[in-house]
Amino acid sequence: MLDVAVQHLPVSPVRKLSEMLERCAEKHKIISFGGGAPSLAPPKEVLDFLCDEFKKEPHAASSYGSTRGMPRVRELIAELLKREERVTIDPEKEICLTEGGTEALFIAFRTLFKPGDQIVLSDPTYLAYYPQLNFLNVGITHVPAYVQEDFQIDLDMLNESIGEKNKAVLLLSPDNPTGRLLEKEIVKGVVELCEDKRLWLITDDIYKDMLYEGKFYNSRVFGGYDYTVTCCSFSKSASMPGFRLGYVYGPAQFIDKVTAIKSYISLCPSRPAQLCVEKYLEKKGKVKKKYLSKIVVPTYKKRRDKMTDMFEKYLPKAEISVPKGAFYFFPDMSRYFKKMDEETFSNKLFEDKKVVVIPGKYFGEQGKDHLRFTFVSEPEDRIEEGFHRMNQFIEENDL
Amino acid sequence: MLDVAVQHLPVSPVRKLSEMLERCAEKHKIISFGGGAPSLAPPKEVLDFLCDEFKKEPHAASSYGSTRGMPRVRELIAELLKREERVTIDPEKEICLTEGGTEALFIAFRTLFKPGDQIVLSDPTYLAYYPQLNFLNVGITHVPAYVQEDFQIDLDMLNESIGEKNKAVLLLSPDNPTGRLLEKEIVKGVVELCEDKRLWLITDDIYKDMLYEGKFYNSRVFGGYDYTVTCCSFSKSASMPGFRLGYVYGPAQFIDKVTAIKSYISLCPSRPAQLCVEKYLEKKGKVKKKYLSKIVVPTYKKRRDKMTDMFEKYLPKAEISVPKGAFYFFPDMSRYFKKMDEETFSNKLFEDKKVVVIPGKYFGEQGKDHLRFTFVSEPEDRIEEGFHRMNQFIEENDL
Repeated sequence: MLDVAVQHLPVSPVRKLSEMLERCAEKHKIISFGGGAPSLAPPKEVLDFLCDEFKKEPHAASSYGSTRGMPRVRELIAELLKREERVTIDPEKEICLTEGGTEALFIAFRTLFKPGDQIVLSDPTYLAYYPQLNFLNVGITHVPAYVQEDFQIDLDMLNESIGEKNKAVLLLSPDNPTGRLLEKEIVKGVVELCEDKRLWLITDDIYKDMLYEGKFYNSRVFGGYDYTVTCCSFSKSASMPGFRLGYVYGPAQFIDKVTAIKSYISLCPSRPAQLCVEKYLEKKGKVKKKYLSKIVVPTYKKRRDKMTDMFEKYLPKAEISVPKGAFYFFPDMSRYFKKMDEETFSNKLFEDKKVVVIPGKYFGEQGKDHLRFTFVSEPEDRIEEGFHRMNQFIEENDL
Repeated sequence: MLDVAVQHLPVSPVRKLSEMLERCAEKHKIISFGGGAPSLAPPKEVLDFLCDEFKKEPHAASSYGSTRGMPRVRELIAELLKREERVTIDPEKEICLTEGGTEALFIAFRTLFKPGDQIVLSDPTYLAYYPQLNFLNVGITHVPAYVQEDFQIDLDMLNESIGEKNKAVLLLSPDNPTGRLLEKEIVKGVVELCEDKRLWLITDDIYKDMLYEGKFYNSRVFGGYDYTVTCCSFSKSASMPGFRLGYVYGPAQFIDKVTAIKSYISLCPSRPAQLCVEKYLEKKGKVKKKYLSKIVVPTYKKRRDKMTDMFEKYLPKAEISVPKGAFYFFPDMSRYFKKMDEETFSNKLFEDKKVVVIPGKYFGEQGKDHLRFTFVSEPEDRIEEGFHRMNQFIEENDL
């Protein structure tokens, strides 16, 4: 084989897991606290609507469209932002639909950064930011967050960390892997800091609808329309990750660039996915409201509460911060890790007990001695079973 | 707004057209020989199967999957290549599914090329290669092809054009915008030339199923497995462009890199799209065979034949090469362009007569004085109507 341009491209452990699980014959024996994929189906109304469209208009429902996405869907998202977050955007010029949140982030990064620029990330944070940013040769400034402080961002520390190469700050709230919901004053503080330091603010709002307590603040409530870029997706909110639909919104000139780049990378967003979202958001978000309030949030809240209890019952030495949103616990497990590090623990736990957790180190320097547990994948009885197996594992290994 | 990293990103005229048409209230008055989108619906069996899956397994049918794509779908594609093209690939290691052919090409280019490398393209060729390659700072070596020679590639000219920065040759057959199907000896010659000069061969096989005469040759029939990369898609073959599903196959190490990059850009391919393709290809491609032979090829062949006649009847001074495959005519219109160039002609034709054609210059230096006409979008009566309007336009403007 001849040489290729790229070398040393790491693949995330969640991606490897995904490949492994897809080939696994005895999936039911595995208890997965691993990948953060919704375990609920999308709203029935949404899939029914799509199938009706396939019957009535099979050609239109399968056809190409504009790179920015269907005008109707962009309008519905703009209405949603107005209604739920008090944010005003122009659906014609300030939004572009994408292949999930991943493409939204990738294109936003590619648009904003030159190689050598730096971005500020809270640490720990979403593991897939790292390879994306490394691939684009964007440096990372880490601002540590601690379980003892419920992983809130320290504004003074953030302020001090910013050097001249920093071009943007990224906020993810609710957060993956910690479930931390940023407090109002902190969001406001970051908006002001970005204004003050002439930085871009990138907000990743993918978990904004996955909220068990507290309130989500869109950063634009505090200003910064000219320097804020938001990436989001329907993968979690509507439980449709396999449909690959996300969006990015921000200043019109920025979105023009995003649209051009999207046209080179993937031409246009999925039409069936857009039709699903049309149904999900129409009539003032009737389907969305009902689905989230009656099904999604109650289901996951019960699992979160169950997992909280299970930590107390089976892993009492884990130091936890109970998540207000998203799908994850990110306990400091150091008291169990005297004999083995978190990667060895995770691998051996899977081998011996068929329980999947993700080693904390993949989420940043501060992830050492932590594990990420998702409560999204398994019902309460299996959460109990998984923690019971972990407890056995700890006893058997005298940890 | 703060500065962004990227500037001067052109958007293809077909993309602009797509945006414009999506907002156009009186679409039916427009006769489009513009964008090359299939005008047929996907096979009914395929959409029915997907809707059954949504009923039976709504969660699984909407969920994430591995970055390379579902193992079952990769196996079906490998079987298809074996059966129809006598090509053997390992579905586990040598293929990665993508968001349409566009992402397949983008990632293949990104994997193979460093900024400053060069690629050899036949000229004219698919207009979207240019912005993709420019965006990646890959230079282009143009090898001209002429209507008088049915746009076949001249092997001597190709050989002479290759300089030390050239790292790959790209073949698109059947071709967009010319409809040219490469002859067997030319495909073989290019494989040998790439071997000889230590170049990558990139083949874009998106139109391989859109064949009205002659035979498509997968270049691997002549060797070159170690240095050949193929991009393809189901957008044209299964009339499902809105589903965004393509694939790239090549040497295992190359596909490893592709998979890593895909995981950064868009995580994983669309699950509903993969389910459609599962149905399309299963049982030795039963649905595919029937759909192409009974519906797609007869429909488009009739339109092609109609358009051939219409050139003779209404545009007798156009110099045409009747396409053997794909969806397009690319006539030399210079005898009509004494007073205005092809862009002015196209714009004015749309304004006055609501007929869409694409100016040839977007397809390369050799596209000057040419126009691209697709015959895929309109039935025969509207093809006649469109040519009639063009004829009027030419007379009214004394061209």
